[in-house]
Amino acid sequence: MSYNYRNFRNNVPWLILFLEAVFIVLFYFLFSEDVAPRSRISYPAFQDVNHMVIFGFGFFLTFLRRYGFSSTGFNLLIIVLGVQCSVLIEDLLVFLLQKPNEDGVKRIAKAAVSMTAVVISTGAVLGKTNPLQLILMTVVEIIFFHLSRWINNTFLEVPEDTGMMHVLLFGAYFGLAVSSYFSEPSPRSEKNASTPKSDLLSMLGTLFLWAFWPSFNSVLAVNYKRRAIYNTYFALAASAVTAFLLSVLTTKDGKFRMTHIHSAVLAGGVAVGYAAHSIEYPWIAMILGLLASVITVLGSYCSERCFNPAMKMHDSSGVHFTFGLPAVLGALAQVILLVIKNWNNLPRLDFLVLFHIGAVCVTISVALVTGFFTGFILNLKLFKTIPVSKYFEDQFYWEVSF
Amino acid sequence: MSYNYRNFRNNVPWLILFLEAVFIVLFYFLFSEDVAPRSRISYPAFQDVNHMVIFGFGFFLTFLRRYGFSSTGFNLLIIVLGVQCSVLIEDLLVFLLQKPNEDGVKRIAKAAVSMTAVVISTGAVLGKTNPLQLILMTVVEIIFFHLSRWINNTFLEVPEDTGMMHVLLFGAYFGLAVSSYFSEPSPRSEKNASTPKSDLLSMLGTLFLWAFWPSFNSVLAVNYKRRAIYNTYFALAASAVTAFLLSVLTTKDGKFRMTHIHSAVLAGGVAVGYAAHSIEYPWIAMILGLLASVITVLGSYCSERCFNPAMKMHDSSGVHFTFGLPAVLGALAQVILLVIKNWNNLPRLDFLVLFHIGAVCVTISVALVTGFFTGFILNLKLFKTIPVSKYFEDQFYWEVSF
Amino acid sequence: MSYNYRNFRNNVPWLILFLEAVFIVLFYFLFSEDVAPRSRISYPAFQDVNHMVIFGFGFFLTFLRRYGFSSTGFNLLIIVLGVQCSVLIEDLLVFLLQKPNEDGVKRIAKAAVSMTAVVISTGAVLGKTNPLQLILMTVVEIIFFHLSRWINNTFLEVPEDTGMMHVLLFGAYFGLAVSSYFSEPSPRSEKNASTPKSDLLSMLGTLFLWAFWPSFNSVLAVNYKRRAIYNTYFALAASAVTAFLLSVLTTKDGKFRMTHIHSAVLAGGVAVGYAAHSIEYPWIAMILGLLASVITVLGSYCSERCFNPAMKMHDSSGVHFTFGLPAVLGALAQVILLVIKNWNNLPRLDFLVLFHIGAVCVTISVALVTGFFTGFILNLKLFKTIPVSKYFEDQFYWEVSF
Repeated sequence: MSYNYRNFRNNVPWLILFLEAVFIVLFYFLFSEDVAPRSRISYPAFQDVNHMVIFGFGFFLTFLRRYGFSSTGFNLLIIVLGVQCSVLIEDLLVFLLQKPNEDGVKRIAKAAVSMTAVVISTGAVLGKTNPLQLILMTVVEIIFFHLSRWINNTFLEVPEDTGMMHVLLFGAYFGLAVSSYFSEPSPRSEKNASTPKSDLLSMLGTLFLWAFWPSFNSVLAVNYKRRAIYNTYFALAASAVTAFLLSVLTTKDGKFRMTHIHSAVLAGGVAVGYAAHSIEYPWIAMILGLLASVITVLGSYCSERCFNPAMKMHDSSGVHFTFGLPAVLGALAQVILLVIKNWNNLPRLDFLVLFHIGAVCVTISVALVTGFFTGFILNLKLFKTIPVSKYFEDQFYWEVSF
Repeated sequence: MSYNYRNFRNNVPWLILFLEAVFIVLFYFLFSEDVAPRSRISYPAFQDVNHMVIFGFGFFLTFLRRYGFSSTGFNLLIIVLGVQCSVLIEDLLVFLLQKPNEDGVKRIAKAAVSMTAVVISTGAVLGKTNPLQLILMTVVEIIFFHLSRWINNTFLEVPEDTGMMHVLLFGAYFGLAVSSYFSEPSPRSEKNASTPKSDLLSMLGTLFLWAFWPSFNSVLAVNYKRRAIYNTYFALAASAVTAFLLSVLTTKDGKFRMTHIHSAVLAGGVAVGYAAHSIEYPWIAMILGLLASVITVLGSYCSERCFNPAMKMHDSSGVHFTFGLPAVLGALAQVILLVIKNWNNLPRLDFLVLFHIGAVCVTISVALVTGFFTGFILNLKLFKTIPVSKYFEDQFYWEVSF
Repeated sequence: MSYNYRNFRNNVPWLILFLEAVFIVLFYFLFSEDVAPRSRISYPAFQDVNHMVIFGFGFFLTFLRRYGFSSTGFNLLIIVLGVQCSVLIEDLLVFLLQKPNEDGVKRIAKAAVSMTAVVISTGAVLGKTNPLQLILMTVVEIIFFHLSRWINNTFLEVPEDTGMMHVLLFGAYFGLAVSSYFSEPSPRSEKNASTPKSDLLSMLGTLFLWAFWPSFNSVLAVNYKRRAIYNTYFALAASAVTAFLLSVLTTKDGKFRMTHIHSAVLAGGVAVGYAAHSIEYPWIAMILGLLASVITVLGSYCSERCFNPAMKMHDSSGVHFTFGLPAVLGALAQVILLVIKNWNNLPRLDFLVLFHIGAVCVTISVALVTGFFTGFILNLKLFKTIPVSKYFEDQFYWEVSF
């Protein structure tokens, strides 16, 4: 075994143990059970979000030929670490800002929603980071995400549930910024490809995400939960239809491409996230889903041909066009809907539009700045970045028997 | 690339785009939100049905060696198209017949239940149709299914929830009728077989269907939901037990056969669908489940040996004995239960029995007639039926990398 | 085909048919629907437990290279048989002891919880028993488990919900006792190993179990359901973290080992089962989860090196350290928590501690004694124990096409 391994062994367990010990101590001081009776969510709603991050993202990322153990395993690891961390940060905010406490189950659900940011970011560096880097990134990103939420909430008066919906935007751009520090894999590498079996498992994960997305968009909504559910469903339906349509049009032989389906079927759910509960007619959600899917497929085309080579970036699972661009579209759509709705109330309109665009810009800026910072830190020699030749390899971290 | 491909590329996307545009326009005119407060279903109940059609049927049909992408992918495509179409037809009926509106979530749930008809029909022609044919079949079948429901409801006074349970019967016989127009695959073809891996994935789908079937049978029940749930569970349990028992008895070496298990474990749920909420004691449901399983396994034996060769038919995933025969049994059982219950009220009995048998006959007749019609249309040269040598091949439609 | 097969064919179907017939007859006499209005559980809660035993354990056990059909298939078979049997035993007790009836859905949920004992036991003899032995074991074990519950309830005043939580303890030790009668597989056998694909499917099952464990621990809780949910979640989170940490420390090269992850991520849920609703602060649950995970990984190390070779035992899927040891830890933890809580009420404390330790000892003793008895019976020549060379082979029971 090389020097690298021994070091890995020497560092990772103690870091994990240290973190878990800190979490337990902080839970002792911060987690309190005095709950305001109203602030509850139903257990099935919590479970849907939990399933989504555990199975959905876990299997969504298994498309790589030899990286299935790491995709599902590390996904579980960072989620359990991140959820504890996120619950603690919320409890700290509750303590510092003297806000009313929320129910334990709701706190975990909110933490699971926050964790989608981290899971999306890991998608951008999938196969290129070691567990040490992943764990650090999880803790750092979840802190910065709550910072961004806090800025939005305090200075731009963004309500809680809308603020949470920035999670996808934050995750995508943070991940992109981090991934810009990691070298590109060799383009001829076989390992950076999928097999039919791994694509099928990834399809299972995608279907999980697809089916649970209405729960994700409605779990924290206070009013109009039902509307959020059916708007999300119809947006997802429209984007699934468009995904198939565009896949045929953009591939060389007019065949369907699995990666298009994986990313574009979800675009509608992402785009409608901000406005799901305020859209009055499903046809608007459907048009939004359609546009989101178009942006995703075109975005994937442009990213691979122009953007990524030009920026020397490598976005392992295409989080930029799967989650980033549709989320930007969703934010714009919300502004347009606001303009239409408040047309005859100009002073209020200016105010609303400014603050909404402000919140989006703040989120993206904080994500990019902290992402570049995190990427820089993670690539210090201290953390033993893995060599490009070992990218996308389960065998580097797991005992694999063939 | 052959002529065939270019045509495929030239037609499919535009058909999909046209359909989606029509749907959005119709949604603009038809979908209204004024909801009667009572007509709601719970979100978890909706989710169960949604999961069932998305994962359950998606993976149930992955048993073919090289058709996993198409099984899960096209399943998603036709479901999202069909659900939109079905919601619109319901809305049109509500508008034309001046019925009270239902909640958005319930409308999607009803549409998902209706879509099981189409999914079952696609099972009969699995691997033999191109996407163009699948999409046309989806739209046509969902219209004809609502027609059949409307006939039953208007002329035979079948209540809403029972009418919906005809969905499995309709799907199976429509699919059989359509499949009679497609040529049989060469019997020595390797592609029309399963591998242990694909069978295991299909088992995952089967278990999804099995576990969600009580939700399917109870989601639209107005009264006695609980009874429908446990009766369905016990019927499924009895048919699962019988499936194992008969598989050993009917195979040459006394081994279990995976296809028997896949189809017969579900037979109980199918058969008990009509009467789940009216059966008073679970032992009746269990006997029904047992008989349904017997009919399925014997049906699979007879179909393969006698019926299909004689009719020159090829039923890819055995929908006739998996869904058709148990549904007929269930309809008969319901009549017998009615006879027993209303024994001392002869005039009412005659009336009830006649109307029930009438509804079943109408459903099967409409399914067969419209199915033959649809099969004929789909095999016009216009739609470029795929050659037998390309049956059961993902590579014909998907970019597949090995 | 050898003599063995013909016999298998001659016996298994008739045994299954006989059992199912007996069940139907008993259901006729015992199952009554007069339900006390309060004794209900929600349908989603029932479904969670149902999913857990059907998918969770079904896929948890698919890690063997050539035993996927049997793992998922036989799991379904024994669950449907066992649930019917368990419902009947409960109904018999209700009838004999004149207790109030419970709702049908709740009865199935309780039966599904009881069945985890059998599923865990089959894990210990996975791949070594034929279906005849599995079925007999199911029926016998479920009877003995209810006997043990009845003893605990009657003589040691253990309340219903705590009594049910002994199910994991009972299952693990019953399974170990049974497995001691089966010969060890040859250590060089390839079949007793996993492949990356089978490990990944098993990971899917593990994630199902992980995500549904909070439902399992809270489904029968009468009070403090919410607390049981979040305590279980945090315990599971802590043990997942610890599983990764210890896996790196205990393997030779400092890599993660999939079997460690599979078993140790669940340890927290198992350990916290007894006390989930009574633990007041999540940090206690987290420490318990951490310790449970330590015990599981160390237990797996010791079992493989010392305990199992010394006892000439072979525990196919490590149920001793996955479920047995964490359950013992959980029972001890509950005693310690009781001591702390009732410190200033010594007479009551003595009483409580004695009865709690008594219940655990009774459960383990009954499990071991009846397990040895069952193992002895199952190895009678009558039941045609399969030869060691045929262990872990789907082909022995299933038609498998490659």
